[in-house]
Amino acid sequence: MTVAVLPASFDPITRGHVDIIMRASGLFDRLVVAVWARPKKNVLFSLEDRVDMVQESLAGLNNVEVRAFDCLLVDLVREIDATVVVRGLRWVSDFEFEFQQASANRKMLPGLETVCLFASTDYVFFSSSIIKEIAENAGDISSMVPEPVERRLNERFPARAATTSAGR
Amino acid sequence: MTVAVLPASFDPITRGHVDIIMRASGLFDRLVVAVWARPKKNVLFSLEDRVDMVQESLAGLNNVEVRAFDCLLVDLVREIDATVVVRGLRWVSDFEFEFQQASANRKMLPGLETVCLFASTDYVFFSSSIIKEIAENAGDISSMVPEPVERRLNERFPARAATTSAGR
Amino acid sequence: MTVAVLPASFDPITRGHVDIIMRASGLFDRLVVAVWARPKKNVLFSLEDRVDMVQESLAGLNNVEVRAFDCLLVDLVREIDATVVVRGLRWVSDFEFEFQQASANRKMLPGLETVCLFASTDYVFFSSSIIKEIAENAGDISSMVPEPVERRLNERFPARAATTSAGR
Amino acid sequence: MTVAVLPASFDPITRGHVDIIMRASGLFDRLVVAVWARPKKNVLFSLEDRVDMVQESLAGLNNVEVRAFDCLLVDLVREIDATVVVRGLRWVSDFEFEFQQASANRKMLPGLETVCLFASTDYVFFSSSIIKEIAENAGDISSMVPEPVERRLNERFPARAATTSAGR
Amino acid sequence: MTVAVLPASFDPITRGHVDIIMRASGLFDRLVVAVWARPKKNVLFSLEDRVDMVQESLAGLNNVEVRAFDCLLVDLVREIDATVVVRGLRWVSDFEFEFQQASANRKMLPGLETVCLFASTDYVFFSSSIIKEIAENAGDISSMVPEPVERRLNERFPARAATTSAGR
Amino acid sequence: MTVAVLPASFDPITRGHVDIIMRASGLFDRLVVAVWARPKKNVLFSLEDRVDMVQESLAGLNNVEVRAFDCLLVDLVREIDATVVVRGLRWVSDFEFEFQQASANRKMLPGLETVCLFASTDYVFFSSSIIKEIAENAGDISSMVPEPVERRLNERFPARAATTSAGR
Repeated sequence: MTVAVLPASFDPITRGHVDIIMRASGLFDRLVVAVWARPKKNVLFSLEDRVDMVQESLAGLNNVEVRAFDCLLVDLVREIDATVVVRGLRWVSDFEFEFQQASANRKMLPGLETVCLFASTDYVFFSSSIIKEIAENAGDISSMVPEPVERRLNERFPARAATTSAGR
Repeated sequence: MTVAVLPASFDPITRGHVDIIMRASGLFDRLVVAVWARPKKNVLFSLEDRVDMVQESLAGLNNVEVRAFDCLLVDLVREIDATVVVRGLRWVSDFEFEFQQASANRKMLPGLETVCLFASTDYVFFSSSIIKEIAENAGDISSMVPEPVERRLNERFPARAATTSAGR
Repeated sequence: MTVAVLPASFDPITRGHVDIIMRASGLFDRLVVAVWARPKKNVLFSLEDRVDMVQESLAGLNNVEVRAFDCLLVDLVREIDATVVVRGLRWVSDFEFEFQQASANRKMLPGLETVCLFASTDYVFFSSSIIKEIAENAGDISSMVPEPVERRLNERFPARAATTSAGR
Repeated sequence: MTVAVLPASFDPITRGHVDIIMRASGLFDRLVVAVWARPKKNVLFSLEDRVDMVQESLAGLNNVEVRAFDCLLVDLVREIDATVVVRGLRWVSDFEFEFQQASANRKMLPGLETVCLFASTDYVFFSSSIIKEIAENAGDISSMVPEPVERRLNERFPARAATTSAGR
Repeated sequence: MTVAVLPASFDPITRGHVDIIMRASGLFDRLVVAVWARPKKNVLFSLEDRVDMVQESLAGLNNVEVRAFDCLLVDLVREIDATVVVRGLRWVSDFEFEFQQASANRKMLPGLETVCLFASTDYVFFSSSIIKEIAENAGDISSMVPEPVERRLNERFPARAATTSAGR
Repeated sequence: MTVAVLPASFDPITRGHVDIIMRASGLFDRLVVAVWARPKKNVLFSLEDRVDMVQESLAGLNNVEVRAFDCLLVDLVREIDATVVVRGLRWVSDFEFEFQQASANRKMLPGLETVCLFASTDYVFFSSSIIKEIAENAGDISSMVPEPVERRLNERFPARAATTSAGR
């Protein structure tokens, strides 16, 4: 049985993430979606919220499991007997970052494989950062994030809901 | 009549910005230079100072208008009846960032066009960040920024003026 | 009146080209679509065929004019009193190529402006080269090229039409 | 059962190819290594030679099968009931090329997944092109290609064997 | 006599840095390794600690000298009569950053040459940032940094030493 | 004494080449400019012409020597007791190509160092290819190549001289 892990900050999970996760879940027997506890960048949502949103957004995917992790990725991989890391690629900068991470992980844990999927063009332009900026400025993010995320962003930036309800 | 908008943080405006603005003003009937109120990165100058420096640096350009904006770019575009966004390109990282922004804006406002101009090679190496670092370290930035910016940077980093007057 | 020119080999014109041309035609008073007579790469179609396909694919665009050119782009620009070159950008390699061309043209003809539009994500993956390879191997290219091009590719690679009609 | 296909020209197969194939063979139930019959670039070796070298170099990998193909990749995929395409990534230019190919294939055959592995740093610098140039100029390529390829390159460029035997 | 300067933050110095420094020291008569006092990014180690680690890691290199600097690089260059800046390149993003810095420095001090060496593939994946993250998460960084740095990272993140001694 | 070698096709030598060569000649005791005999791409000029043009263009540089080579670069390096290869960088694609070449050479000849200089922005946009295309189409290339090259290009493309003399 091949166990794969897909780690990210998920602050918050986007439709682009969901797309990659669904595609990856078809490639491996079991897929662990791992929410990184302490991203370097400031996060908008708490770890608990981020995990909740991922779980609610992935409900119904049978071979997918969600968990938080607060250690090196290679230590998580060892703990859950994974042999593959999955990541999505959108841009050249992603490519160089992932190459660097994959090679560093491979040095620390020989035999660990990183496989990359290309983002679907429908989702390639909506990173978590852009979505948060749009939400913060009262833009419509309903086509970019799963419903559980949209709801929480509405709560977090009430001006947004208000403006929308005013018929914008 | 084609209205174009050129948005940036302008912290502060550089000669590279001025060059792109002058070239863009020749392409469209009216050009709105829009100063972004709340950049993610820490800014050196207040919004008011940034707008003042842009205005003083562009004095004499007839079809150019300067204003601040504190909303999504697409909302500003709607408000001023613009149909075009103009941006300058210097580097591969610019290219990917602008592609992402342009495509996101196009999804939010179909029909909005983003056009890019290539930076002149004389100015390609002087970003606002590098210029601030040079000014902070008492370097000569007179060939990189318009006079109204040079004056303010001198006030902000008096050591610079002092060192210079000492005959360096 | 602003005259812009959009030069390319058009071997053959694709839906991606048509998209950029339509978008560019909305930005300038007059747009000259210029078919380059002697591309360095081997061409599949004669100059006459390439011009014909461009003309047929753009029928109905009022301010767009098609012509061949067999000289430096800057000489064509001078001849037709253009002030702007328009090009589409898809990839980092496009970006560096266009930057190089634009800067060389600007050195030869100061004041000539090159503006770039980003390809729509629907068309970003279908270059003329990929489309020719698909057609040559009996793939379905109907969604990638205008009808006048599809017809000619069918004539050129009859196996394709046959395979298709066989109910593939 | 997941069937994956790894297509390339293999002119000739290198140790970098072998490394990616071995790693990919551990990820999927069955891996078809597919030798592209008609590469656009001039090939040094005939299709038969290229297939032979791949087969001899992969002897002993149980779930790996070698075959030539002379059709669109998506048609091969349909024929062998594959669901995954595997490719190695070394450089930014690889990344953009693969993204383009993967997205074009996905448009032609929705549901087809392309997964990319990063080249091992030991092999990242030895493309088939560089190796052929080294062999042609009498350099030592024994650490870059499998033995069956080294032997054929020696036959093809006898000067090389001669120079080497002369004690260089 | 050619004096070269190699400036960096060294937070902390890595084996990749040591490799570039050793290679550069063979190219020039005298090499000044310059520790930048005030990096923009938050540093883990004080300037004094960073200088100490560089000095201890380079002990025995005869024509290499270590010093801190708290001014523009071009001012340091003037002070020590250097004519060359040396930098290592790993990634495309490095390349664009270094091109920008080198060109800006050349404008400020005509005649100043920047030469770049390519990182060895053994060290290309271990930046100071990744190493700090590994150390912080109790990973083994002994193959990535010189001994004087490993010792200090152990003191800084005692959990790491503890976990290791626990037989991990 | 440090001997450096700067290899290229020089088809033909440009002012950008001359600039890099002059800057490199100031860094090393002796600089061998090596003209590659058999470039993969079709060349416009014979090896003899290319060497002649390089020699005439570099007349007066005391520590610079010109020669052709028809072997692996590492074999030339061994023959002339060089320890350094010098190359100019203009673009991301250059960067990846040079990284690949430098690393392959280093594997074949451990200890061989490749140092890169950044092209001056005045020359960054004029590659040999673009210049040949301009000359072929009767454009003015006098600011892009040394006089000995301009003269030969005039002979090669007489239409150019004619057009020019007609007062264009």
